[in-house]
This record gives sequence, structure tokens and C-alpha cells, in this order.
Amino acid sequence: MWFTEAWTPNINFQVRIKEHIYSEKTPFQQLDVYDSYELGRFFTLDGIMMANEKDEFIYHEMMIHTPMSINPQIKNVLVIGGGDGGSVRELTKYSHIETIEMVEIDEAVVRACQKHFKITTTGLDDSRVTLHFEDGLNYVKKTKKVYDLIIVDSTDPIGPGEGLFTQDFYLNCERILSDNGILINQHESPYFEKEKMEMKRAHQKIKSIFKIASVYQAFIPTYPSGHWLFGFASKRYHPTRDFKGTYIHQLGYKTKYYNEEIHVASFALPNYVKEEL
Amino acid sequence: MWFTEAWTPNINFQVRIKEHIYSEKTPFQQLDVYDSYELGRFFTLDGIMMANEKDEFIYHEMMIHTPMSINPQIKNVLVIGGGDGGSVRELTKYSHIETIEMVEIDEAVVRACQKHFKITTTGLDDSRVTLHFEDGLNYVKKTKKVYDLIIVDSTDPIGPGEGLFTQDFYLNCERILSDNGILINQHESPYFEKEKMEMKRAHQKIKSIFKIASVYQAFIPTYPSGHWLFGFASKRYHPTRDFKGTYIHQLGYKTKYYNEEIHVASFALPNYVKEEL
Repeated sequence: MWFTEAWTPNINFQVRIKEHIYSEKTPFQQLDVYDSYELGRFFTLDGIMMANEKDEFIYHEMMIHTPMSINPQIKNVLVIGGGDGGSVRELTKYSHIETIEMVEIDEAVVRACQKHFKITTTGLDDSRVTLHFEDGLNYVKKTKKVYDLIIVDSTDPIGPGEGLFTQDFYLNCERILSDNGILINQHESPYFEKEKMEMKRAHQKIKSIFKIASVYQAFIPTYPSGHWLFGFASKRYHPTRDFKGTYIHQLGYKTKYYNEEIHVASFALPNYVKEEL
Repeated sequence: MWFTEAWTPNINFQVRIKEHIYSEKTPFQQLDVYDSYELGRFFTLDGIMMANEKDEFIYHEMMIHTPMSINPQIKNVLVIGGGDGGSVRELTKYSHIETIEMVEIDEAVVRACQKHFKITTTGLDDSRVTLHFEDGLNYVKKTKKVYDLIIVDSTDPIGPGEGLFTQDFYLNCERILSDNGILINQHESPYFEKEKMEMKRAHQKIKSIFKIASVYQAFIPTYPSGHWLFGFASKRYHPTRDFKGTYIHQLGYKTKYYNEEIHVASFALPNYVKEEL
């Protein structure tokens, strides 16, 4: 039995399945959890792999430890999306963080992961974490709070994730971000056409709003092309010049992907990616 | 019609095919050339994709311009394998290179590429290039010449490429390399088990022979996991401390992947890769 993900209409990625563990049609999307021989457990939303046990650490480490090492004073964090809890898990390692609010549109994703994909959910019970089950786009419009870090841990810009790639959304993020604040977002990929277009559109919008806007990358073999991007935006901090060393290691945690050289190297983009941006 | 490559027994990579252009059972391996919707033309050896029109530039730029920028005095180059000609094409851009000898075990690969996969073969007619159709392992044993750069552009260490991953081969490379010489080799991948084992074995051997031995990486989406490695070995030069700027650009050539930041960044390995090495 194989799970097949169409990376493009002309490229497939296939994973041999041990067991189809769980399936649910939520109010927002189709959710499935599988166990596989190569990647361990993984879950999908509308047929797209979101995270698997073998390499979820790459995505979540790069998404969280990169901004946390640029501004170790971060106290109040907003996570938009990220229903599997992996971003929150990494954030809870920082004892000086005071509040973590996670705004996930689809409660079913959190509940399914807590039952069937536990590896990423270990931080969700932390007393600093508050869960809001609502649309992130609406949340950033109406909230009066100010955040030092916003993590946009979204799906692709189709379906429930669409609003999290709009100008309106980024403008509101800018409004609720402190002067020292950093915005990180899932930024698609430069290689295949669809993700490349979304990468360009997202970067154009963010660049028009934030003084500092960069893109960084990681090797994530199970995402289309394996070349995956994150957006970094800030009113003040430069992602490499203001890098103060890997703060997560000063706290005594080990990382499996992120390190000091990787932090800097991840902002070094190939020429063809720079040209597209 | 789909071409399927088993990245592992439990992971498939599939490419939709326009046309199966050419097929030949050579004395050494099964050779096929296809045209595809997403990657343009590509060719396979024993069912494994070697190069395609969409991203061959990444592999060949990273393999050649990295050492050429560390020692711009390189005059005599030996390419082992590399039957598609892509490595030679990049080398011929350097007018100060005096001789390029390419030792490819399977003449049929060169001839098929010259007919059906022309993108990589444009350097093979350069007057400085000599082609030897013989086993690279034997060639390095018997040659009396000395080289400033050896490029091991091999297939995986099964079938005809096996000898190019042996201690004997690396020892002979060391013997025929000048004091300023650099050895670059195709170094497999850290992610899936089979390539990870080969990566470790190759690095252990090279490290035991060369004073300086590093590994560097590139995003090559169509190789298994998309996280592909190259080996750098030298008697004298450090790959980043002795980096003198992107010499290829001083010659007026543009590159689509390689640049100054990428050169340094490519040697920054994730923790899990460092630990395996």
C-alpha cells in the first residue's frame, strides 16, 4: 500500500504504508494519519504530508531557533497554524518565554495529533500555552496584544491556509509586532512552479511591509523538492548580523539540525532563487 | 507513462514521461534516455536518474566551481566518470586550465549523451580534453601523470562505480595529486539509510588518507532526498579559509546556483550529518 503525493501534476512522491491509522473529514479539511516503513508516522491534510516522525525536527528547529537566537529577549509569542504542536514544543524549551498563544483554525488537527502523532505535541500542556481555535486572519485583525515573535506555521496557500498569505494578514502581523519583533513564515519552495509562484508572491508582499525581509532555507527531504524556505521579517533585526549565537544550546538543549554555521548558511541562497525573489 | 525510481525500498520518486527516447544495453549497464514534462530530458543508468535538463546545473556547478575557486592555479585536471560531460563543460570555462583528461568506463554513455542529452556535452570537443574509455580504478593505478584536481563524478557504489569508492582508489588519487591538489567526489547523501552508509564509508576512507577532508552539500531535488553531498580532500587547502572568491565570476561567467555565500554555506552541515560523519 502506497501513499502518493503529487508534488506537481508530473512528479509523484510515494511512501509505502504500514497502516492507515486514522481518517477524519473535519469542518475544514480531510485529515489522515499513517504509519510508514521509512518515515514512521505521518499525517496529511487534504492529501498533503504535513509532518512525519523522521524529519519534522528539521522544519520545527529551523522555524523556531533561528529567530530565538537573533532576539533572545522574546517573551510573548504568537503561533498561527502549527496544529501539530511542533513549533510550540520548540518554543517551550525557552524558560524566559512568558506566553505562547497558538491560533489554529482546525481543532481536529490538534486532537488527532495528540492521539496519533504525539511526537510534536509534548509542549501543548505547558502552562504558558493558550490554544485558540479560530482563523488566524481574524485573530490578527482583532487582537489588541503585542507580540515579540509571530510564527506563521501554515499549510500551502490553498484551502484554510489561504488567508495567511494575504497582504491584509501581513499588515496586521506588522501592527501587532513589537519594535523588536520578528515574523517567521512557512515560505514554500523555489524549485517547482506552483511553490515558486507562492514564494515570490509572499516575498513581494512581506518586503513591501517590513524594513528587513529575508528568506532562509533547509533540507527537508519529504517536502516537494526537498528545498524548503522560511521567511524572516523584522522592523529592526538583521538575521545574520544580529545573530548572537545559538541560544538554544546555551540553555543546554541539543539540536539535530540547527547549529551556528547552519544559522548563517541557511540565508545563503542559490543565484536562481535570488533572481526569482 | 511514469518513470519510477525507488529512492529506498519504501520511497518512490516518479516522473511523468513524454517519450522514451533511447535505450541501450551497454557492456556495463542499462542506459535509457527519456523526455519528461517536468524535468525535460533525463538519462538513467540501471534505472537510476543521473542527470536531467532542469537541475543538472546544480550538481555540475557545485562540483567544479568550488575547487576552482579555492585554487585558481589548477592546470591539469582528471575527471573520473562524468560520462555526460557536465563536469568537463564547467571546467572548459577556465582558460588557464591546460589539460582535462576524462576517464569514463562506458563509452556508450558519452555517445548517447552526445546524441540525446546534448546540454552537458558542449565541452567535450574542446582541444584540451582527452577522453579515455577505461576503468578509472585501473587508470589511477598505472598513470605516471600528476594532477592539480581530480573530479570523481561517479555513479553510486554498486555496479561500474564500485571501484571508485575503495581505499585503493583514494590512495592512488592521493599519489597522483600535486601538493596543491584537490580531490572532489560524488559523496552520496545523509538522509536515507543506503546513501548514509556509503557517505560514512567514503568519508572514513578519505579522512584516513588526506590531511584535509570535508563534505559539502547542495539542494539537488531529483537525487534521493534532495540533500546531496560532495567530498572535498586536499593536502594543503582548506575549503573555506583558503577560498579566494568566486573565480568563475571574475572570468565573466554567470552561474545559476553557485555564488560566494553558497560556497561557504555549503560546508555548514546539520548536526545530524556531522554526527554520522
